Amino acid sequence: MMGENKPVTAAIVLIGDELLSGRTQDVNARAIALALAPLGIDLSEVRIVGDDLEAIAEAVNALRARNTYVFTTGGIGPTHDDITADGIGRAFGLAVDHHPEAVALLEHHYSQRAEALTEARKRMARMPKGASLIVNAATGAPGFRVENVFILAGVPSIMRAMLEAVLPHLEGGAVTGSVTVWGRNLREGDIASGLEALQSKAGGAISFGSYPHFNGPGDYGVNLVARSRNALLLDQACKDLMALMRSAGIEPEVVETETA
Amino acid sequence: MMGENKPVTAAIVLIGDELLSGRTQDVNARAIALALAPLGIDLSEVRIVGDDLEAIAEAVNALRARNTYVFTTGGIGPTHDDITADGIGRAFGLAVDHHPEAVALLEHHYSQRAEALTEARKRMARMPKGASLIVNAATGAPGFRVENVFILAGVPSIMRAMLEAVLPHLEGGAVTGSVTVWGRNLREGDIASGLEALQSKAGGAISFGSYPHFNGPGDYGVNLVARSRNALLLDQACKDLMALMRSAGIEPEVVETETA
Repeated sequence: MMGENKPVTAAIVLIGDELLSGRTQDVNARAIALALAPLGIDLSEVRIVGDDLEAIAEAVNALRARNTYVFTTGGIGPTHDDITADGIGRAFGLAVDHHPEAVALLEHHYSQRAEALTEARKRMARMPKGASLIVNAATGAPGFRVENVFILAGVPSIMRAMLEAVLPHLEGGAVTGSVTVWGRNLREGDIASGLEALQSKAGGAISFGSYPHFNGPGDYGVNLVARSRNALLLDQACKDLMALMRSAGIEPEVVETETA
Repeated sequence: MMGENKPVTAAIVLIGDELLSGRTQDVNARAIALALAPLGIDLSEVRIVGDDLEAIAEAVNALRARNTYVFTTGGIGPTHDDITADGIGRAFGLAVDHHPEAVALLEHHYSQRAEALTEARKRMARMPKGASLIVNAATGAPGFRVENVFILAGVPSIMRAMLEAVLPHLEGGAVTGSVTVWGRNLREGDIASGLEALQSKAGGAISFGSYPHFNGPGDYGVNLVARSRNALLLDQACKDLMALMRSAGIEPEVVETETA
């Protein structure tokens, strides 16, 4: 584990025209964020780009320079629009070719099913030179890693299997805990100045957030959230948030606690 | 309407620590994409950034330079972590202050409810100099526009109301139609080379995509999608995709058609 004071961050590049057209609702970014949080790895930025070599390379290069880890999802299947390997190759200035180990994995996978390893399927073994494989439980087609960039599938069940395979190899940091206090019928305007005072008092040790819900007249409220790497401060913050809500005439409800 | 040959693009910046922590699943990006598509405005990129002035300004500046429109969501409420107005001000080099028209709207809104326009609530009228308001049906607190950047709320129902108010003011382009053909138990590897041949033949006039679904053994298939601004080409593409699936022994099902 890295020291408490060195922030460990990750960024995500979600790749696919179907995400930009609105055809597909992404669920991978949140799944990755929730998997990294318990390791003390904080997500710093997410980008969604289309199936475009230059867009992929630009996003990956911008994010890998300023984050401990980068994860990409999508574009590693057998069809012509799966161009993530080439985008990663362009980002790193590496040639892309069939990876012998990946070809062997695919051969084994398809021979077990008495299916042919077609040229199209063999495409899934194309990777930048020097990539290491992300072998996983869900599919014979591996993801891969180049330096601090992890290239995962876009299909959520396969993405999660690849992520499971990757997590034990990541070095994490200090875990950020959180507490969420729900105020039904609370309005932000009634606690905003008190919340700001709490934030000013806490400085950078705690981060307070306010997340309103509004589903129509009568069906609204606010989640107040405190996040910190210090469990004792978090405990006090929880009490402070509850007192703040009560001062606005609303009975608070602690709906979630994640320990630091 | 602009000419057929000039692509009209949009980008989105989703703002909020809650999106990066995984606390909140974003649904706004897809809603905006689906609202813009019928106007012939194609989404080119999405970024998710935290409640951080520099991150907001950097993302907005990168995207407004290369897109017809940029939409931001989130960070325009009354609490201390709502800093989108300041981020936009930084991006454009504009001072941020209470907008007289917005203050008047808020005064009217809260006086009708016999509630006080607290300093915190008045914060929602803070905007970069010269911003124009996005008055909407859902809330007295308006969004705002600076040049080609539209600043919308993060709460989905309020975001949609602001988007509704904005859409009539956008200049669109040629609409991209699409057709989706579903192949149950189809595997991408069995149609990948045929699909690539279709793409090669079509050149840039049609964009073919392949989107596998995999929920476990027996529960899988592929959506093949053709997208084009030309309705006749799209009609032919649909027939070609159906023939391709049949050649792989799978009976195709046209599940969606959006006319160009």
